[in-house]
Order: sequence, then C-alpha cells, then structure tokens
Amino acid sequence: MFVSVRRSALAAVSVLSLGAAIAGPAMAQDAATIRAAISVRDAALTDTVAMDYVTQLTTRFGPRPAGSASETAAAEWAAGYMREQGFQNVHIQAFPLVGWERGQESASIVGANPQRLVVAALGHSPGTPVGGIEAEVVRFASLEDLQSVPDGSLAGKIAYVDAGQMVAMQSGAGYGPLTRIRGAGPAVAAQKGALAFIMRSAGSDEHRMPHTGTTRYVNGVVPLPGFALSAPDADQLSRLVSYGEPVRIHLSSTAHTYETTSHNVIGDMPGRSRPEEVIVLGSHMDSWDLGTGAIDDGAGGAITIAAAKAIAEQGRTARTVRVILYGSEEVAQPTDTGNGGGAYLRSLSAEDIANHVFTGESDFGADRVYALQLPVGAQTGAFADAANRVLYPIGVLRSNVPETEGGADIGPIVEAGVPVFGLKQDGLRYFDLHHTADDTLDKIDPEQLRQNVAAWAALVWLVADSDVDFRAMRPAE
Amino acid sequence: MFVSVRRSALAAVSVLSLGAAIAGPAMAQDAATIRAAISVRDAALTDTVAMDYVTQLTTRFGPRPAGSASETAAAEWAAGYMREQGFQNVHIQAFPLVGWERGQESASIVGANPQRLVVAALGHSPGTPVGGIEAEVVRFASLEDLQSVPDGSLAGKIAYVDAGQMVAMQSGAGYGPLTRIRGAGPAVAAQKGALAFIMRSAGSDEHRMPHTGTTRYVNGVVPLPGFALSAPDADQLSRLVSYGEPVRIHLSSTAHTYETTSHNVIGDMPGRSRPEEVIVLGSHMDSWDLGTGAIDDGAGGAITIAAAKAIAEQGRTARTVRVILYGSEEVAQPTDTGNGGGAYLRSLSAEDIANHVFTGESDFGADRVYALQLPVGAQTGAFADAANRVLYPIGVLRSNVPETEGGADIGPIVEAGVPVFGLKQDGLRYFDLHHTADDTLDKIDPEQLRQNVAAWAALVWLVADSDVDFRAMRPAE
Repeated sequence: MFVSVRRSALAAVSVLSLGAAIAGPAMAQDAATIRAAISVRDAALTDTVAMDYVTQLTTRFGPRPAGSASETAAAEWAAGYMREQGFQNVHIQAFPLVGWERGQESASIVGANPQRLVVAALGHSPGTPVGGIEAEVVRFASLEDLQSVPDGSLAGKIAYVDAGQMVAMQSGAGYGPLTRIRGAGPAVAAQKGALAFIMRSAGSDEHRMPHTGTTRYVNGVVPLPGFALSAPDADQLSRLVSYGEPVRIHLSSTAHTYETTSHNVIGDMPGRSRPEEVIVLGSHMDSWDLGTGAIDDGAGGAITIAAAKAIAEQGRTARTVRVILYGSEEVAQPTDTGNGGGAYLRSLSAEDIANHVFTGESDFGADRVYALQLPVGAQTGAFADAANRVLYPIGVLRSNVPETEGGADIGPIVEAGVPVFGLKQDGLRYFDLHHTADDTLDKIDPEQLRQNVAAWAALVWLVADSDVDFRAMRPAE
Repeated sequence: MFVSVRRSALAAVSVLSLGAAIAGPAMAQDAATIRAAISVRDAALTDTVAMDYVTQLTTRFGPRPAGSASETAAAEWAAGYMREQGFQNVHIQAFPLVGWERGQESASIVGANPQRLVVAALGHSPGTPVGGIEAEVVRFASLEDLQSVPDGSLAGKIAYVDAGQMVAMQSGAGYGPLTRIRGAGPAVAAQKGALAFIMRSAGSDEHRMPHTGTTRYVNGVVPLPGFALSAPDADQLSRLVSYGEPVRIHLSSTAHTYETTSHNVIGDMPGRSRPEEVIVLGSHMDSWDLGTGAIDDGAGGAITIAAAKAIAEQGRTARTVRVILYGSEEVAQPTDTGNGGGAYLRSLSAEDIANHVFTGESDFGADRVYALQLPVGAQTGAFADAANRVLYPIGVLRSNVPETEGGADIGPIVEAGVPVFGLKQDGLRYFDLHHTADDTLDKIDPEQLRQNVAAWAALVWLVADSDVDFRAMRPAE
C-alpha cells in the first residue's frame, strides 16, 4: 500500500505538469487548483473555527436529543453561527419526528446481597410497568444462542446477551456485530417470552459507562424494554450467573416516545460560476442524551463548517459548498421518514439531485483522517492523483476501496445517485466514547480536529473549484 | 539510585555468606532465612488465592459501605474464607460507627438550556432540604480564593472550587492538595454564607466519574451539603461560568448518617516458637458505595491473605502472622473512635502492643510494588540488605525514606509504637479509579497483583522467621 501510494504521488506530479500546460475548463488536476487546495489545506491546519464551534455548541446546549428543546435551540444558535462565518441562504428545515425520552431508569441485583447495576435503556425502548420488572436472568453468549431456545421458553425471565467486549479497531468494524444484537435483541427476547432484554454495551470501553443506541421497531413498536449494561456491570452479572445460583434483577424505566419536530440547519458558500452545482458536507446536530455529543457529532459540524469557511477564505469556488447539520440522525428508525437525511431529500427536485455533484459525511468523531475513499470508478485516475497529492502530506492515504454509503444522514441522497466520498477517521477510541456519558468536549484533540478540517477543505476545494464529474466516471452497468 | 541499589545487592550477597557461617538465634540475614524467603516469593508469583478472593468478594457483595449490611455479610464470608485458607483464631471484632448513606442525588444546570451534571455527594455530607437547593454558582480557582472572600458574602449562592485536575504521579502525591479542599470546603463555604459546596473531583481520570470521599466534621457535623463533579462536568460548569452569564444549578441529595456497627476480621497464621510476637498485615473491608471496592481495598485483603497463605505453605514461622481486614476505613472521622484501627488498638494491652513487632498496610490498589520503606533506623544494615536481596529481583527497590505512617488502618498501632513498613505501589492510575464507580474487578491486573503477594510474602517471611527487632534499631531521641 505504501509503495503504491508513493508511485501515485509521483504520477500526480507529472499530471500536475501536464495540467499546468492545458487551457480550458478547470480540472481538479490543474496546477492552479492543486496549488489552491494545498493553500487551503495549510491554512486549515491552523483553524480555530472548528474547536470554537464544538466548544460553544456542547457547552451552551449540552446533550441534544432529536426533537428536544435543546436540539431546537442548538439548531437556531448554529444557524446564527453559520451566518457569522459568512454562510448564505442559511435556513432551518423542520420535519416531524417520533422522539424518545429516557426519563428515569435503574437496575439492581436483588436478593441477599443487593447491588446497583449501571445501565442505559436502548433508544426507543418502552418503559417498564410502574414498579418495574423483577425476574431471574437467563444469560446467553450470543444472539444465536438466544434465538435457538424454544419460543415461550423464557416466560417470566429476563433475557441477557453477553457476547463479549467489542474489539476496538481503526475502522470501527467491531461495532457492527454488536449493533445487530442491540437491534434484534428485544424482538427475539419477546418471541421467547421474556419480560425484558438486557445486553453488554456495544462499546469498547471498560468504564461504568453504558452505551445506548437505538433498537429496532417491529410492527411499529419496540416489543420489550431493553437495556445496555456497562462492561464492568456485564462482567459482574455474568460472573454471578456463573456461580450457579439464580440471579434476580430489578429493572425500572420511564422511557417513552412522543411526537415532536426536528430540524436540519442548511447554509451555503455559494458558487462563483456554477452555483446550482452543489457539494453537500453532512453531519448531525442531534446527540444522545447521556453525553454532550462532542464527538458524536458536534465534531462533524465543527469540521464541515470550518472546512467550508477555510474554502471561502481562500476564495469563492465555482460550485456551491453546502453544509447541512442534520436533525435526528440517532433515533430515527430505518423504516420511517423521521430523519434529517430523508427530509432533505424530499425537499429536492430531480434536477436538484442531478446538480448535487459530491457529498460526504463527518460522523466518526474527531480523531485524524487516515484514508480517502472516492466514489465508484474514481479510485484511480487524474482526480485521485490530485487528491492524493494534497492529502498524502497530512497523513491521508488513498484507499482502493470505493465509498458507497457515506453515512445515515447523506444516505438518502447517495441512494438517489449523488456521488459520495469518505474521509475515514481513526476509530480506535471512538467506541470508548460514543453513545456514552463520556462523549464530552475534553475527548477532542484539537490538533487531530484541525487535521480533519484540512483534509475536508483541501479535498472539497478540488471538486468545488473544478469540473470534475464523478457520475461520468462510473463504470457502465 | 540504581547504582546504590546495585551496590547494596552486592553487600547483601556477602552478608549472606557471613550469615550462613554463623550459628545462633535466627537472623533475617541468615542464609536459610533468605533462601526460604526467596522460595516463598517465587511460589507467590504463581499465587491464585489473591485473585480468587478479590473476585469472589467484589462479585458476591459488590460495594461494602462501612456499617452496611453488605459490609457485615462480606466480613462473615471473609472470615470463612480465611478459615478455609488455614488461618486460625479467626474472629470478628464489632465496633459502633456513625454510618453514612448516599440515598438519591442529582445535580443540573437550570435555565434556558438545562443540563444534567454528574456528581457524587461527599461522604458524611448532609442531604439537601426536600426539593433541593437552587442557586447561582460562584466559582473559585482555589480553596484560598474561597477563604479570601468576606464572611457572609456568598449568602444565597453555591460555592464552587475548581482547582484544576489532579496530577497523576507514581507516588500519588497529587491527591493530598485536593483532599484538603474536600475536607475543608463545606466548612469554609458555610462561613461565607453559601447554601452548598461543590468541587471538581479529587481524582485524575477524565471520565463522567465523580470521585467521592469523606469531608470533615466541624463541631460534630458537616455544615453544608457537599458534592464532587466529574472532571468533564467541572470543565463544563467552569466554561459556562466563563461565558459571563449567571449560571444557576439545582442540587438534590437524600444523604444521611445513621448509627450502625462495623467489623474487623482478624485471623492468624500462629507462630511456631514465639507465637505471642505478632506481625499485623492490614487492609480494609469497607469500600465506597459507587464501585465494588476492588482496588480500594479488596485488593489489599487479597494481597495480605494470599501472602500469609503463601508463608504458611512454606512452613510455620517463628512469629505469628496476623491478617486484619479492618472495617470502616473510608468514612470514619479522624476525631472519632469509629474506625477499625482504633477498635483494634483498644482491644490490645500494653504488653500486646509491645509484642507487635512489625506492621504494614496494603491500601493503594493492585498495581506493582516498586519500593520498600523500612522503619526509622532500619533503612540500612543487615535487615535492609537481606530485604533488598529478596525484593530487588521482582522490581522492588530499597528506599532511603523511612516509613512512618503506614495508613489509616494501622495508624493507631503505629502511633502506639509498632514498627511499620511500606511496600509502595505504583499509583499512576490509582486515582483514576479509587472512590469512583470505576473501582471494579476488571481494573486489577492479575500479574501485578501476584507481584504484590510475592513482595509481601517474602518481606514478611524475613521478619516472621527471624529475631529482627526494629524497635532496637531506632535512633536514640
């Protein structure tokens, strides 16, 4: 990988010489475009906007659950902040949402030696009956083990899946298998007759920090109260169960859903010559309720706002750079229309969509970008070489894997055909923090945050101030 | 330091040769005693008792607040555990105590953008009035700053001391300055007219983990409700205050004291030839209520029980090795009689005390021992050389600082004249965990725990199976 990157860097140099000699429509690989992107990048490495934004956002508003008064107030404040940074056409797009409030919750081992357990209800989980649920725990080492018992066999019991601790990886790939348990667990437990579902947190930390996150609707409801135990509490409960005596626990939760409104905040740095051509930089404004949403995803807004600002300070680009702070990324169900990405898509005409030339989402914390994934068909060639030329010096390698998804916020426009990129961030400590009370400002490393801003600003410059057409690069089907 | 230790190690070798040639009363520096100590040490490096004890203790009983039903049950269980390990004369010594129960507590920023704060009431803090306290926060950067304002000037306010984050050090020396704030803060705040006292946690971690601990009585009461904020919450509150608008918070606590009983668990590995001569290995059974007291101080019990067991497996020593799991180390006030160390001292006659030849306390977590501190006058000489001979190979250096205190549990007998040693443990991460919800079993590194057992067993063997008399080594006053 390293060798091929070096070779590509050399190739980029010759493309640069070639580009400089060509007159005609602006190309990403033109020497002037690359020079400007490098200049934007280097200026962005001293950015102060990103840290300022995420500091004020998380300090002034704290947690911003989708549809809450806090999210609404934060959206209004962020719109003003964007205007101050020079964004134009800043507006707020409201959409209806089924919100979810945690309320009060508790869990404890009961019996001769009672012990409090640190838990968090799973998003969209219903509350328990008043007075709570008290029952014996039946432990399973995997979702498959739970699935394998006869329907109805857990009547009067609490189903507990402890599939072991999430493995931290740079890519974050260890998270997926555990979200599957979180999504499907309550429904499977209900089918087996259980009264409630509990699981080891889908996170990689070893603190008393339960990791929340949404569980899945089945026929419009989450069938059972579901909870995540912190890792030390999961260890404790599994050890107690292994001692062979029945372990009873008491669970209580006043969690409930409610009808509300969430908001996308949208602002443009308008294009100079082709303003109708739009690049969308996405992230989300809402956060889980346990932390203050600094890394998930205040950082994303900070990075994209600061990148657009850095671009604008270099000069007006041919195309429009649009920043969207989406509402309601965290709690929307895949099947409903209540998320910001869907609301934005529904506001666009087919022509608008065709004019969306590029999109990316920053929603993986604030640690450094280590790789660039380009749209299908664009992983090699002049644009990829130009991008490598501007990103390699700040530690961003080219990936030969195309980006195909982007994330939950831009997912709807990507599905509608908008070319997508991925600036992949180091996720080694991301799942120590995200969806926990520990997602707070102090976890952001300002230097790594600035590297993100630089990577975003430089890459987006290459597209915003050129004619590059990623749709044209797609292989014929 | 390293050079002098090497030189001492060489000196120990020649002492060893000399010792082997001498007939007469057993000396710590006798070749046979050293050989046996090395053998005990090496066997203890594969110990399984310590990890088994602390696992069962923390799993079966969870938190063990002094005087609680859980501490009582754990003491009874531990007495049985010690009998199974071969301890004799195992008995429980009850003593009266003013206990403290946390009850329910909460804190939040109120106003346009309410936010929950993660706090823990300080031990022995009274509860708030029903309905809580709501008032503006006045921040001070030090206890001295709070002390400097006029008496009565904080009427109707909440005094907040944020003296910055504790500095983690191997010795743990960063903790003292912050415990001073915790001890004195409520009384000073009351003198200034404040309704409540809050402070940044006296810990070194950066998690949403407030660090509890006892505050000080004045005329028999803690004058105000006192709370510790987790580090990220302290950051957040200090930033909000710095924004210049008044910050109001709501505090609620049902904490209260109550009359109860705590217990010391005492067991002996009786001496072969001089059983009346006793070495006391101390630690404490009680824990704070937030975690499960694994490192503070389940580990201490584990280390001392396992060390005594390792010694007994090598053979019966001349003197008695006594293990005491003290009750109520955490919550007793320095001025009252309600702690385990005081209760034990009161059970001894002057002759008993004279027969206590050596004592040490394990109450600094489960990380490795890096230095040995010997009693005043014993830092050099034949015993120190022998100790260095057996401890240096497992990474324990000799210190030229004498041990004078030992810790809160053995403090009363040390003050009564019993020679004290200190096996100093690495405290770099100790204050990330202790007095927080994160003090759980998973934080114990079994290999470092075994190194502790080996160090204790080897050192204690040298004293238990020799005539060494530390009182005789004391310099004339």
